[in-house]
Amino acid sequence: MLLETIEKPNDIKKIAKEDYQALAQEIRNFLIETISVTGGHLGSNLGAVELTMALHLALNFPEDKVIWDVGHQSYTHKILTGRREWFTSLRQFHGMSGFPKRKESVCDVFDTGHSSTSISAGLGMVKARDIRGEKSTIVSVIGDGSLTGGMAYEALNNAAKLETNFIVILNDNNMSISENVGGVSKYLNNIRTASSYLDLKEGIYNALLGTKRGDSTINRIRRAKSSFKQLVIPGMFFEDMGITYLGPVDGHNIEGLVKVINEARRVKGAVIIHAITQKGKGYLPAERHPARFHGAEPFDIETGIPSHPRTVANYTDIFSTVMCKLGQRDERIVAITAAMPDGTGLKRFRNMYPDRFFDVGIAEEHAVTFAAGLAAGGLKPIVAVYSSFLQRAYDQILHDVCIQNLPVVFAIDRAGLVGSDGETHQGIFDFTYLSGIPNMHICAPKNKWELSDMLKFAVKFNAPIAIRYPRGTAYAGLKEYRAPIELGRAEWIYKEWEIALFAVGSMVKTGEAVREELKHQGRSVSLINARFVKPIDEDAVREACKDHMLIVTLEENVASGGYGEKVLDYMNREGLHNQFLSVTIPDAYVEHGNVELLKQEIGIDAGSIVKRILSVLAPRT
Amino acid sequence: MLLETIEKPNDIKKIAKEDYQALAQEIRNFLIETISVTGGHLGSNLGAVELTMALHLALNFPEDKVIWDVGHQSYTHKILTGRREWFTSLRQFHGMSGFPKRKESVCDVFDTGHSSTSISAGLGMVKARDIRGEKSTIVSVIGDGSLTGGMAYEALNNAAKLETNFIVILNDNNMSISENVGGVSKYLNNIRTASSYLDLKEGIYNALLGTKRGDSTINRIRRAKSSFKQLVIPGMFFEDMGITYLGPVDGHNIEGLVKVINEARRVKGAVIIHAITQKGKGYLPAERHPARFHGAEPFDIETGIPSHPRTVANYTDIFSTVMCKLGQRDERIVAITAAMPDGTGLKRFRNMYPDRFFDVGIAEEHAVTFAAGLAAGGLKPIVAVYSSFLQRAYDQILHDVCIQNLPVVFAIDRAGLVGSDGETHQGIFDFTYLSGIPNMHICAPKNKWELSDMLKFAVKFNAPIAIRYPRGTAYAGLKEYRAPIELGRAEWIYKEWEIALFAVGSMVKTGEAVREELKHQGRSVSLINARFVKPIDEDAVREACKDHMLIVTLEENVASGGYGEKVLDYMNREGLHNQFLSVTIPDAYVEHGNVELLKQEIGIDAGSIVKRILSVLAPRT
Repeated sequence: MLLETIEKPNDIKKIAKEDYQALAQEIRNFLIETISVTGGHLGSNLGAVELTMALHLALNFPEDKVIWDVGHQSYTHKILTGRREWFTSLRQFHGMSGFPKRKESVCDVFDTGHSSTSISAGLGMVKARDIRGEKSTIVSVIGDGSLTGGMAYEALNNAAKLETNFIVILNDNNMSISENVGGVSKYLNNIRTASSYLDLKEGIYNALLGTKRGDSTINRIRRAKSSFKQLVIPGMFFEDMGITYLGPVDGHNIEGLVKVINEARRVKGAVIIHAITQKGKGYLPAERHPARFHGAEPFDIETGIPSHPRTVANYTDIFSTVMCKLGQRDERIVAITAAMPDGTGLKRFRNMYPDRFFDVGIAEEHAVTFAAGLAAGGLKPIVAVYSSFLQRAYDQILHDVCIQNLPVVFAIDRAGLVGSDGETHQGIFDFTYLSGIPNMHICAPKNKWELSDMLKFAVKFNAPIAIRYPRGTAYAGLKEYRAPIELGRAEWIYKEWEIALFAVGSMVKTGEAVREELKHQGRSVSLINARFVKPIDEDAVREACKDHMLIVTLEENVASGGYGEKVLDYMNREGLHNQFLSVTIPDAYVEHGNVELLKQEIGIDAGSIVKRILSVLAPRT
Repeated sequence: MLLETIEKPNDIKKIAKEDYQALAQEIRNFLIETISVTGGHLGSNLGAVELTMALHLALNFPEDKVIWDVGHQSYTHKILTGRREWFTSLRQFHGMSGFPKRKESVCDVFDTGHSSTSISAGLGMVKARDIRGEKSTIVSVIGDGSLTGGMAYEALNNAAKLETNFIVILNDNNMSISENVGGVSKYLNNIRTASSYLDLKEGIYNALLGTKRGDSTINRIRRAKSSFKQLVIPGMFFEDMGITYLGPVDGHNIEGLVKVINEARRVKGAVIIHAITQKGKGYLPAERHPARFHGAEPFDIETGIPSHPRTVANYTDIFSTVMCKLGQRDERIVAITAAMPDGTGLKRFRNMYPDRFFDVGIAEEHAVTFAAGLAAGGLKPIVAVYSSFLQRAYDQILHDVCIQNLPVVFAIDRAGLVGSDGETHQGIFDFTYLSGIPNMHICAPKNKWELSDMLKFAVKFNAPIAIRYPRGTAYAGLKEYRAPIELGRAEWIYKEWEIALFAVGSMVKTGEAVREELKHQGRSVSLINARFVKPIDEDAVREACKDHMLIVTLEENVASGGYGEKVLDYMNREGLHNQFLSVTIPDAYVEHGNVELLKQEIGIDAGSIVKRILSVLAPRT
């Protein structure tokens, strides 16, 4: 095995050229075998094997630095920097992250997880290098999907001014998670497919590369008149900004890539290498179903079928079904996603109402203000988005939706702990950033029927409203509790005395378990489904304070600005001095791993909560 | 006066062509006279007089819709839609807003204030128009400065797919508030100045415009080969994305603009009109000092000199001075602004250390992740930014700076109530959105010396930290209180009993006035300068709870996620049941107007606070 000879950074350089293909195949096999067991991002990693090998052949680690946009494509980089044996713990509790992590390796220079950050970060590191008088090659690797994010463009706009070297590799597979969208994508596609460009490519690069005068040739072309430049350089879009464009090049040709990277290092300024790759390359199921193998659950290698096929509905399924029904009832309902038609469950809505469905690409800021425009134009937009990605559009929610009190519905999926994607993807801040915004309303369903009821409530509600629900299986308990949704009204599930549990969304299920254990210990416990985090049900709190010694709030959100603080604030204003305990996510990032294990670790599982409640009830010493 | 004949929308159409210039001059005079008294955005409005007139001549209001990016250039639009007489109350308490407001007029279709939103909003309104089967012309007017913001590019990328009409007017004056930056700006500048383009322009437009076959000619050119297209169409950057480009056109030629707008309406798809304008046009002081006349205080028309020149330092001045000193002491200190070198006070730092200063343009997202890259590269970046604009970079702070615990300093100016710019610019959410982020630290100075001390503390502090300070005169009281800054440590100013006032930043001064009045009424009052909002000084709270009946927190931030909630949360955890009152901004947007009047209106002036404290102390009935 060639792979076994690679134990630390730069070991790849000992591999003979004629073995490159064999090594690439070994890496592919390793990735497929590993991810088929652990789950993980398969397609993007299979597409980046040769690109990563070329970077490791051309550069020196850790002196040279690569910033991986999003970072889910960094598995081969992890293998080549000595972390192959950690892969059995990939994305697992206390195991190796599925994203670059500075604390894992000196060869991981910038943590990523969200899209479109790599050029900004890379440009910062370039400036730091220059100011400190250091020499190193700095490369940002960004996908064409990430290039639809506005901050990538902000960064390119600034990179254009550079007078020292900075390499951006555009890893272009014509996909984000699903198919890529928009004008720039179309433009790249034209480059990719136009025969004239492809014919030209070989001639140009034979002329430029492998000769010592290559860079001066590039510079001469850049100085030439526009019409000539357009004729010979496909990447005028980038050249217009002042960035040297090299490409398109075959992203699976290792030696070709090494040559282009070495060529790019000689350019005094920002340079884009446009590499054409194929997502899922080398594994037929992943080539055919790129969206399914973007983030894959464990699967059977032979067939590509999930090892543990899902048999029960998750919240995304419920959302998907209800959206189709709502779309039929009201023609003003429109749906927006930022590159997540599959992940958010809007694919069925898209198929039924293609004219009322908008995939804007990875562009959350635009998605939200676009929704505000749709609402101002008299429609009822529903923005379906993951909690941690909506962070990108905080200002747009505050400034474009809520100041004008526009009726935009935010369907916030993956809220609370998400598990194996880790720190960058945990949806544990949304109550905080949304609660502070005037005119915003926030609710969370206890089970699958309530998600449906809340959605129906939300589309009739004439103001901004967010519904947040977790990743994974939709809770199907408490079916008999289905009081109509009313703004700011909680739902009493069990009404007793002594201890009142006010639980939000996913924590209602946990609250049931907490209650059962406390009952077991002879306590009397009420359980209230909070439903609304903004506005809170003040009547329910006041009522609970009458005959409960202890008020407990349960939420999957950080404490600051969360539900608990609102309840406590209300109790204080009313002079209600019952004992009060707020159970929240602690003030720290939560790493990747199984959600149940994470909950135990941070003390928001039923067992930990019971202990905390009992310790509060115990007389203080 | 022609202006007097314009009392409602579309009245301008009664004006004879030969009077257009005269009307433009009357509008200019009116703007200069009005703003010289009220203050306001002068330069951008003088630059947009003819452009706005042309829109009102070509379109019908309110059927047709114009979305003004940022919106500070909408004064002429306000005049032409019947609001001329409201200008005496411009930007004043309960007066007319300096930005478009839907509640002011049916001709204001989308509220703006922050940059780069207009194309997203316009595209949403276009889609709503089409889905509802309506006919109207929808125009987004965006400046070249706003075009550096990433979400404008996200929107253009989506607009490229349109198959119905949508007009974007690029109002290109080569400025944001200060001089514009970056690759795209350079590109636009090339178009603007290249004589070949300017020569071509006339020929092309004579051929295209004013003939019924103009649009088919445009389409023919668009279908032509790239090299030819590049030769005749300057806007290849936009054409590459799939957007029709018309221009450059003279943005002060009313009839020419009307022609181009009518031409653009016939394009089935997104079309950009590139209009070249001059900021401050027609008023020499504003032409010469565009940054100074961007947002002007009242001034003398003859000389352009402020009517009430500032004689005392504001917080921005203090920041400016300290930054220069710090820059001298430590070569690793670098400064970043998003198009605000004047507003943030970094101009002097730029002049002294040009290589360590970065103006990234209107691009807050990039600014923050770029700073994270600089920090990861071993430097000490200080991001100077207005509180409400930093909202744009919430995810970047959380995801790129704080997960990696990178030592980036955020110098947050214009925090708290900002006054005449109103709802979109109030910096009243930063404690909320920053407090929820793990690893973030937040402080606020009581006076000008403390801002200096906190900055020095922050650049030595090896983790993310934000210092927030208000717009306007730097408080010079309490000079004798200058205990060294320690992380999470408050400062006792007056130590008595009964009532303890924990005041944050600007509210320390208010706290003094509150204390004085309460003392006058025979109360005993302690005043504590909180200094840190995260982490709070728990020891000080515990100590205060020992001998004070009532704990009061004072902050210029909304309640949710603010300082008060943190103090109350701590008191609850410790079982401290002293009376507690949290004084905050209410959960509602705060309009424009004099800050003192606004504080009275929302009950956070000293008088209102005293009343609230006394009512809390009064026995409950």
